[in-house]
Amino acid sequence: MKAAAGRGVTKASITLADGRELIYFGDSADAAAGYPDLRPLAKVEASSQVRYDPLLGEWVIVASHRQDRTFLPPADHCPLDPSRPGRLTEIPAPDYEVVVFENRFPSLVSAPGAAGGDDTAGDGLLLTRPGNGRCEVVCFSPVHTASFADLTHDQAALVLAAWTDRSAALAALPGVEQVFCFENRGEEIGVTLSHPHGQIYAYPFVTPRTARMLATSRRYQRDTGRNLFDDLLAAELADGSRVVSAGEHWTAFVPHAAHWPYEVHLYPRHRRADLQALTPAERDEFCDVYLDLLRRFDRLFGTPAPYISGWHQAPAGAGTQEFALHLELFTIRRAPGKLKYLAGSESGMGAFTNDIAPEAAAATLRGLGEGKPG
Amino acid sequence: MKAAAGRGVTKASITLADGRELIYFGDSADAAAGYPDLRPLAKVEASSQVRYDPLLGEWVIVASHRQDRTFLPPADHCPLDPSRPGRLTEIPAPDYEVVVFENRFPSLVSAPGAAGGDDTAGDGLLLTRPGNGRCEVVCFSPVHTASFADLTHDQAALVLAAWTDRSAALAALPGVEQVFCFENRGEEIGVTLSHPHGQIYAYPFVTPRTARMLATSRRYQRDTGRNLFDDLLAAELADGSRVVSAGEHWTAFVPHAAHWPYEVHLYPRHRRADLQALTPAERDEFCDVYLDLLRRFDRLFGTPAPYISGWHQAPAGAGTQEFALHLELFTIRRAPGKLKYLAGSESGMGAFTNDIAPEAAAATLRGLGEGKPG
Repeated sequence: MKAAAGRGVTKASITLADGRELIYFGDSADAAAGYPDLRPLAKVEASSQVRYDPLLGEWVIVASHRQDRTFLPPADHCPLDPSRPGRLTEIPAPDYEVVVFENRFPSLVSAPGAAGGDDTAGDGLLLTRPGNGRCEVVCFSPVHTASFADLTHDQAALVLAAWTDRSAALAALPGVEQVFCFENRGEEIGVTLSHPHGQIYAYPFVTPRTARMLATSRRYQRDTGRNLFDDLLAAELADGSRVVSAGEHWTAFVPHAAHWPYEVHLYPRHRRADLQALTPAERDEFCDVYLDLLRRFDRLFGTPAPYISGWHQAPAGAGTQEFALHLELFTIRRAPGKLKYLAGSESGMGAFTNDIAPEAAAATLRGLGEGKPG
Repeated sequence: MKAAAGRGVTKASITLADGRELIYFGDSADAAAGYPDLRPLAKVEASSQVRYDPLLGEWVIVASHRQDRTFLPPADHCPLDPSRPGRLTEIPAPDYEVVVFENRFPSLVSAPGAAGGDDTAGDGLLLTRPGNGRCEVVCFSPVHTASFADLTHDQAALVLAAWTDRSAALAALPGVEQVFCFENRGEEIGVTLSHPHGQIYAYPFVTPRTARMLATSRRYQRDTGRNLFDDLLAAELADGSRVVSAGEHWTAFVPHAAHWPYEVHLYPRHRRADLQALTPAERDEFCDVYLDLLRRFDRLFGTPAPYISGWHQAPAGAGTQEFALHLELFTIRRAPGKLKYLAGSESGMGAFTNDIAPEAAAATLRGLGEGKPG
């Protein structure tokens, strides 16, 4: 199946041997989709629940089929490489640009006919619902040893197009309330595949973090008549001491109350609710600014930084009036060889200690621009 | 200085060479306090701030002096062992039972005369306050190779007495709003000292997690006229499938919406606001139930389980009408050799995926009782 993704990006989808969907993005999509999945792949019986924690007021995903997931093959059998004769991977084509497919061991999976919210089980306080949703894998490049920071501007633009396309498609699924595109990079975060890739979660609930941001911004709007995201970005720009880089359309800064040793938030100057709302000029500049940020991160410690990067978007059908699309990027490394652990205070109480002053982190990152000594 | 801690427990405090306070607990406290700190210890210039994150509605601690903290000495120079001639440690006495002292590299430290809340700096959205508070270390045993699970009932009772004493004393400090007694155990959580010990944080704010529990329980009280903690405990007892162990006074269960692979919450049957409110009979039985739980955890994986354990108490001067004291114990290990990482979904969105069904976790823990095959 071939289709034109928005803004001139071509995509083509196929069905993998176990029934999962795979979508190629880019000019080569149509040709890539000509290769069938030749693996004798059994269907994974995935089942997922979400349960409500009434004390914390949040949903938790329970996906016990994942506990038995196979450990991943050795590096010379990377499942995210293109397929070659005699070595079949998750991606049937012999080459690709950007490809997205359903995770074989998903945390969230929709039951047939599921509509979400209608199947609440349990009486009173112990609520359970089907974990309707979807988990996808995004391969950024066919090159096993690359990383996002190695991509060209055009490759990054194609990933952004794929994120945008999938965010819209997944938000439209029955029962999905929020879509999160993110990348975990580095063994220190538990990543077992070094091939450059990210993930997309389509949740059947508004995530705890987004719910809090919506609550604070709505309270602020009520109290002041103003938008909290707008005022925060303006305050950071006016202060300036934590700004890392700024283009015509995007501003990257270490937030005043950063939780992590090196943490950067990247906002468009004009508030947008989600990825779909970005203009072509904003998309274009995003690639330059984001690639520059990732390269600064990789110069922090001499070795590639383990990081988590994710897009915060307005939930499906809520918050589009007040939420501000932005990307949050942080590393859990605080110094070469030293990690920031989430121990008792963070995991038990949600109270973070940051050992690096945000102004110092911003100054360090500012000094690590292209051509500067690393 | 010698003083009788509540409920017949003796304590005696001394001042370490750099001015920090150290307190011995137990019958030997007075004798132990006779040994002065003979180390030539320079005073650490600790400074701490807390900054408000207006989007998440929570405070973050910034303690940049900690970044330069010395790495800890090799195992044969454990700073938590008692001192011996020629080998002086943090604890001057040649023996002790339980000892508590101020952390040399604290996340929170009160400036002289600080009262908290009066020194808010920053205009508008970028708020900073002094990080008034205190961080203490609790040594559970003088035996370097022991763990909490190895303690006798009476040793555990002395630790509980120390937690109770310190919770009350720290809650009374100017500017302190909440006290958290916890233990991080295991290298996997970043613990670099294997000597059995825990920590106490006295925060100048109500922690994010406790603030949420107070908000949900107050809303529930308003909506139903009932107490949320009471009703949740009753619902878990009525269901029974997740109860791990139960005594006359305490119930241990895996919560219906557990966030972690093996997570147990331990509640007294009668709601108490904080450690001080426990009766002698509740204190007595707690030691048996908790030691049994820790021993079950250590039988889960063949090797000692890395865990985080912490006491959730009502904040100082707030929530005593509705909050329910309880202990939360969880391991970040989901199988031998496999850890649960907080990656994109958890760290970025606060959305947890639990790979082990809570009922299965409870059944496993029930099967690991004393004398049962591990």
